[in-house]
Amino acid sequence: VGNSRLEAFSDGVFAVAITLLALNLAIGGPGHGALTGQLLSHWPAYVAYVVSFSTIGVIWVNHHALFSQIASADRRLLFLNLLLLFFVVSIPFTTSTMAEYLPANDSDAHVATATYGVIMTGMALSFDLVLWHSLRLNHVPAPPTRAGRFLIQLRFGVGTIVYVVATALAFVNVWIAVALFAATALYYVLQQSPKTPSAE
Amino acid sequence: VGNSRLEAFSDGVFAVAITLLALNLAIGGPGHGALTGQLLSHWPAYVAYVVSFSTIGVIWVNHHALFSQIASADRRLLFLNLLLLFFVVSIPFTTSTMAEYLPANDSDAHVATATYGVIMTGMALSFDLVLWHSLRLNHVPAPPTRAGRFLIQLRFGVGTIVYVVATALAFVNVWIAVALFAATALYYVLQQSPKTPSAE
Amino acid sequence: VGNSRLEAFSDGVFAVAITLLALNLAIGGPGHGALTGQLLSHWPAYVAYVVSFSTIGVIWVNHHALFSQIASADRRLLFLNLLLLFFVVSIPFTTSTMAEYLPANDSDAHVATATYGVIMTGMALSFDLVLWHSLRLNHVPAPPTRAGRFLIQLRFGVGTIVYVVATALAFVNVWIAVALFAATALYYVLQQSPKTPSAE
Amino acid sequence: VGNSRLEAFSDGVFAVAITLLALNLAIGGPGHGALTGQLLSHWPAYVAYVVSFSTIGVIWVNHHALFSQIASADRRLLFLNLLLLFFVVSIPFTTSTMAEYLPANDSDAHVATATYGVIMTGMALSFDLVLWHSLRLNHVPAPPTRAGRFLIQLRFGVGTIVYVVATALAFVNVWIAVALFAATALYYVLQQSPKTPSAE
Repeated sequence: VGNSRLEAFSDGVFAVAITLLALNLAIGGPGHGALTGQLLSHWPAYVAYVVSFSTIGVIWVNHHALFSQIASADRRLLFLNLLLLFFVVSIPFTTSTMAEYLPANDSDAHVATATYGVIMTGMALSFDLVLWHSLRLNHVPAPPTRAGRFLIQLRFGVGTIVYVVATALAFVNVWIAVALFAATALYYVLQQSPKTPSAE
Repeated sequence: VGNSRLEAFSDGVFAVAITLLALNLAIGGPGHGALTGQLLSHWPAYVAYVVSFSTIGVIWVNHHALFSQIASADRRLLFLNLLLLFFVVSIPFTTSTMAEYLPANDSDAHVATATYGVIMTGMALSFDLVLWHSLRLNHVPAPPTRAGRFLIQLRFGVGTIVYVVATALAFVNVWIAVALFAATALYYVLQQSPKTPSAE
Repeated sequence: VGNSRLEAFSDGVFAVAITLLALNLAIGGPGHGALTGQLLSHWPAYVAYVVSFSTIGVIWVNHHALFSQIASADRRLLFLNLLLLFFVVSIPFTTSTMAEYLPANDSDAHVATATYGVIMTGMALSFDLVLWHSLRLNHVPAPPTRAGRFLIQLRFGVGTIVYVVATALAFVNVWIAVALFAATALYYVLQQSPKTPSAE
Repeated sequence: VGNSRLEAFSDGVFAVAITLLALNLAIGGPGHGALTGQLLSHWPAYVAYVVSFSTIGVIWVNHHALFSQIASADRRLLFLNLLLLFFVVSIPFTTSTMAEYLPANDSDAHVATATYGVIMTGMALSFDLVLWHSLRLNHVPAPPTRAGRFLIQLRFGVGTIVYVVATALAFVNVWIAVALFAATALYYVLQQSPKTPSAE
């Protein structure tokens, strides 16, 4: 029972944020040229939608896996979780901005992609803090060994490093950055942390 | 407890998506002619609203019936469920696009209706995958016989086939396609799968 | 457990619909005249917001009271509940339309207010169906006597009749209709049905 | 179980309201000048977003702490909670209005900031009523002494007084008012009420 409202509130925020992503799919409508052309020229919005939907989806799955192992959250964990949600809630905005500016591939596209990367980095750092606080307070029922903890944090922290790198690379080539954002989501689909046999 | 967050998150997404459908009801407002005229000429939005509301409603009811029989979801099922939600979240966009283009009944109307059909087909295929994975892993507490499984999947898969047909027919006659979308929702109101006496 | 998802999904829809009402508070912003003037001239939106917020709030409280007494919903009740949500989801649209047209107090204002009334009548009728189905199947744990049932349905059905009357009166005087909408919400704040000692 | 739907519905409203805050981050997009310039000039939206996100986050944390101590809500508490949600739902509107008018620092900025303060005062007063009603009816399992109650209400009520002061000061200096809004959120991060050892 201890985490039920933390989970319910977080699930609500994840659900609203992931659904708002789709608002960005909207096209000009009648009077803006042939529909097929409008839909095809809107491809950056689809790429951004797939990457952000996957990212929020993966955040939710790992949030679910982590909190299913935490017996009871303390007040500090509630606020660290709010910090994570602060960045999650910003994802629809950075997604639509990136999608709008990507195709021009100019200096604005670099800025838009880097902005996306900054929010992702903030999200990843908050999630690291949530994990770190959970491990430190031994909230996780089966506390791992010191080496085990290090491994868990390493696996988990890898995403943060990739996001920092992708943010920097956004100023060199936006598509490499976008590919790294997509690859990070895919990595966390395959890699669950903290890994335990009964982690579902 | 195993599925409580999967259900809570899915319910949140279903709830937001079904409520966003109503944003499409908005009319021009003062300065766009007599209100009665505006409301009457907006009938394609009402048709699309009724069809999409019924469809998401039915998806929710069947999602509810299926997961009430699954003891505990594994990680793969979480991601298959996310794939289903990916298409559900796109429904408000395809609904409003279809409603805007339907009345002209031109080539754009065909494209808009086919786009709606493609998203519905993707939704139905993901739901088939969710069902198939549940049956394969015997998550369902009372595993049916081989013949029983086939029947369940057939009944369930029928919608997918109708969506493919409706998508193709959208290029011939948009109203036949819309009628098939509505009929599929009605079919799933009457037909529950997997069918068990205690399925609520 | 039987109703937990019905309640979670309904709560999600109620929560999104009640929050979307506030989108209607938005004003023109900088460049549309002094802010005080903009805020003051926006009073019909505040009236409509208060009436619709109270109405959805009361629907939620009575939905909560009713379903807390229903042991387990059958499939038909799920769909009757969806019908109720269909009308609830339409309330933000009819609210903003009514607010936009009210001040002119012309024939459009009559139509906008009547449209609001039609959706409210549909909502009230669906709620009557939900209650009627619950009583008929004796889902309610302590089934009342025949006379008791009649009284419950009468008290509950009064709102439906008032909505029909208000819809008709909207063509005579919009403010009488709006006052009746507000009075109905107030009536259900004070009057709970089905009335039982442990109704929370 | 007594409060589960009150909590679920409130969590839904908090989640939608906190996510809608981010809609205000949207910028003009392509054709409105260099992106860096657009993002930098949008700083009042970020300030308002941080303050309002923190405020709603803190309301949620304290709502969670308070209701975890209430065994079962009565009907009056449901309506007092709805009154609280009435103000919470208005926060995205007052936030975006304040953000739009702040930079000009003219009489409109004063009005916009005072409007924000009025809604915050209403929210704080409703929360005081929720707390007062809970204490009065001894819903809280370990009813404190008379002096203890006074202290709890004092600590809790401090925010209300600060909001009233900030609203008045908005007509003198908008930035002092905004700083007080931020300080109040920070105060409630550090100060929990009612304070009990097992308050999570």
